[in-house]
Amino acid sequence: MKKAVVLVSGGLDSATTLYIAKSMGYECYALSFDYGQKHRAELNAAKLVVEKAKAAGHHIVDLDLRQFGGSALTDDHIKVPDNKDIAADEIPVTYVPARNTIFLSIALGYAEVLGASDIFIGVTAVDYSGYPDCRPEFIASFERMANLATKMSVEGQKIKIQTPLIDLSKAKIIERGTELDVPYADTVSCYNADDQGRACGTCDSCTHRTIGFQQAAVPDTTRYV
Amino acid sequence: MKKAVVLVSGGLDSATTLYIAKSMGYECYALSFDYGQKHRAELNAAKLVVEKAKAAGHHIVDLDLRQFGGSALTDDHIKVPDNKDIAADEIPVTYVPARNTIFLSIALGYAEVLGASDIFIGVTAVDYSGYPDCRPEFIASFERMANLATKMSVEGQKIKIQTPLIDLSKAKIIERGTELDVPYADTVSCYNADDQGRACGTCDSCTHRTIGFQQAAVPDTTRYV
Repeated sequence: MKKAVVLVSGGLDSATTLYIAKSMGYECYALSFDYGQKHRAELNAAKLVVEKAKAAGHHIVDLDLRQFGGSALTDDHIKVPDNKDIAADEIPVTYVPARNTIFLSIALGYAEVLGASDIFIGVTAVDYSGYPDCRPEFIASFERMANLATKMSVEGQKIKIQTPLIDLSKAKIIERGTELDVPYADTVSCYNADDQGRACGTCDSCTHRTIGFQQAAVPDTTRYV
Repeated sequence: MKKAVVLVSGGLDSATTLYIAKSMGYECYALSFDYGQKHRAELNAAKLVVEKAKAAGHHIVDLDLRQFGGSALTDDHIKVPDNKDIAADEIPVTYVPARNTIFLSIALGYAEVLGASDIFIGVTAVDYSGYPDCRPEFIASFERMANLATKMSVEGQKIKIQTPLIDLSKAKIIERGTELDVPYADTVSCYNADDQGRACGTCDSCTHRTIGFQQAAVPDTTRYV
């Protein structure tokens, strides 16, 4: 059975990605990060989702990105904006500097130790916040770099960064995940989620999610405050 | 004054790199990692070196790579080999999976928050252990990826990965560092360093260092056990 490392934040996209990786026949090793995010409730969601998916392993890595700050998700002085207050061509302040690069790099180390050939990440470049590290050109470049970085690459074992959601709208992601029985009620996407994982309904992440459920005509089981 | 993030392990190469960055006129922000390395004494060395260099800042990031293991530096079950026991064409077991990728990625996040345009790393591809993530082709590929990864790159600010030691022999590095008054007696290169930072003299890292001082005809102030 081929092994894969799957980045699981606890949100809708990464949960769907985990279930897709499983449906493709991979033995899945989940990786989450306690990076000082305000919406720590997503970590409980990650645990629930990984358990239900019966993943082969799950690491929650402590990495304090608050020491650098620079994002509304890691700095108490920067407020998470409502979706309506973000200009269409703007990368919002919820962008966390180099986050996906950091997460993928640690996933690469984990993959090499496991002997895994694939890393799954639930980025999408359709209904998304415009983060640069969600774009296909970034992912392709990371994969090229990863195949020069490791002992396993020198020995001829290629690593593939798998992005099954990259071209999908939020509605299409939800349709696919619903077919796969992804437990969406357990997932937390909200940047302002409270301790119980209840969502604000107005941040960028909530907005994409809410519209996605509407467009997919799938009942939205998200718990709102 | 241009800002730079400088990776400082506490060893000879990174200390020299920090002093070179300083001599080039950069305001230097040092970054070290407490990653579960057996030779934790290098972190005290890092603190001393950064203090003496009067860097503008210093973060020591906690990131437990022991949870993955897979290296003689992070797994108590894998012994650090003597240099004489390593085949010439072999990547030794002291290789830490994706270590430089991970360190550079976190440096990238820090650089973006600071508005720094340069990241310095003391890799060398001459007298080295054959680690894939010390090679020029890896560094070039990381730089290309980094320039797609961040908000600052989208806004047109390029990031440069600076490797002033990449083509230098260990002797040449020591000659250059001696000109710059790098406090080599404070640095710790040994993979088996004891709590006081005393070196074994026989591991791969010690061997490169010892021969370097001999070839440079610079007195070796390393403290050996």
